[in-house]
Amino acid sequence: MKILVIGASGTIGSQVVNALSTAHDVIRANHSSGDIKIDITKAESIQSVFDEIGYLDAIICATGNIAFNAFSELSRQEWDVGINSRLMGQVNLTQIGSKYLNDGGSITLTSGIIADYPIAYGSSAATLNGAIEHFVKAVSVELPNSIRINVVSPTVVTESLAIYGDYFPGFNSINAEDLAQFYVRSVLGVETGQTFKAFAGN
Amino acid sequence: MKILVIGASGTIGSQVVNALSTAHDVIRANHSSGDIKIDITKAESIQSVFDEIGYLDAIICATGNIAFNAFSELSRQEWDVGINSRLMGQVNLTQIGSKYLNDGGSITLTSGIIADYPIAYGSSAATLNGAIEHFVKAVSVELPNSIRINVVSPTVVTESLAIYGDYFPGFNSINAEDLAQFYVRSVLGVETGQTFKAFAGN
Repeated sequence: MKILVIGASGTIGSQVVNALSTAHDVIRANHSSGDIKIDITKAESIQSVFDEIGYLDAIICATGNIAFNAFSELSRQEWDVGINSRLMGQVNLTQIGSKYLNDGGSITLTSGIIADYPIAYGSSAATLNGAIEHFVKAVSVELPNSIRINVVSPTVVTESLAIYGDYFPGFNSINAEDLAQFYVRSVLGVETGQTFKAFAGN
Repeated sequence: MKILVIGASGTIGSQVVNALSTAHDVIRANHSSGDIKIDITKAESIQSVFDEIGYLDAIICATGNIAFNAFSELSRQEWDVGINSRLMGQVNLTQIGSKYLNDGGSITLTSGIIADYPIAYGSSAATLNGAIEHFVKAVSVELPNSIRINVVSPTVVTESLAIYGDYFPGFNSINAEDLAQFYVRSVLGVETGQTFKAFAGN
């Protein structure tokens, strides 16, 4: 398979690349490094990537920014960080990318445990991660040519505990290698419209 | 109680007003009629309403626009209809309005069954209704002064079947009078952070 991984150099994306690159042709894309540069907040940037790489079998998005702040302090500008990246970045990637997928191809997006379990400063993240999960369920019935779409919702990643651990008190983490298998399942499996909750307790 | 109902002249809002106005002081707000005019897509408009009416006990939002179209055709301008009204209109109403609620007051927002069950042309509605449900759960733990927040998710309303029925084939409807009771439950009950799914089968 020819597989595009966006956020390929990230904590999650790099393990997704590791899990898939032995058996597949993986194209690594990042905001500012890798085989391909992509800014998912810009539809033109997404379009130019597909113009360059052409038809493919799977698209994986392991990126998408969101702002964190107390709800009472969250500005529209901060909300727009997540609206334009986590939400509409992944929506636009789906809309544009689905036209370049071969029959039976797949799209795998990323949300996060905050959609289900509140953390401090997390109201925008909860909202927009949740939005993507509902988007995936809804759009799965509209995609043509047997294209599938799923979203992976990770708990805090073990490798990121030094940075984010304090925001997830008592949350069990998942290591990025195990997390990557949920993306593999989405790409190589048969499910569609699903949220893969990469955490226990749901 | 002093209760603000936004969308008070609508199919749902008018029954919410009926259900609450005998025992409570209900202020009717609409986009272009009623006691108060409000445009929830404009933070300034929301702010000016609370400047005018002052402290109150409950805020009910029974409005919020979303665009409907095939996913492949949905433009960013169409997405922005729902982002600015259904999503950020209700978020801004919560952020601004919560500062004017008396202790133990409540906010009740509106989503819709499309969050859970896809319909044709409904991908933006599913996404943004779902977003509001996750928002309510997350923000419920941040609101001060024992303020509660819930969201009502209606199925198609019986009184609207002539207009919307074809988009909900085989969906059982709810009449607006019965639906209004979910808003009453949110205002007069003790629950918070909940989505009241006003439909069977979930």
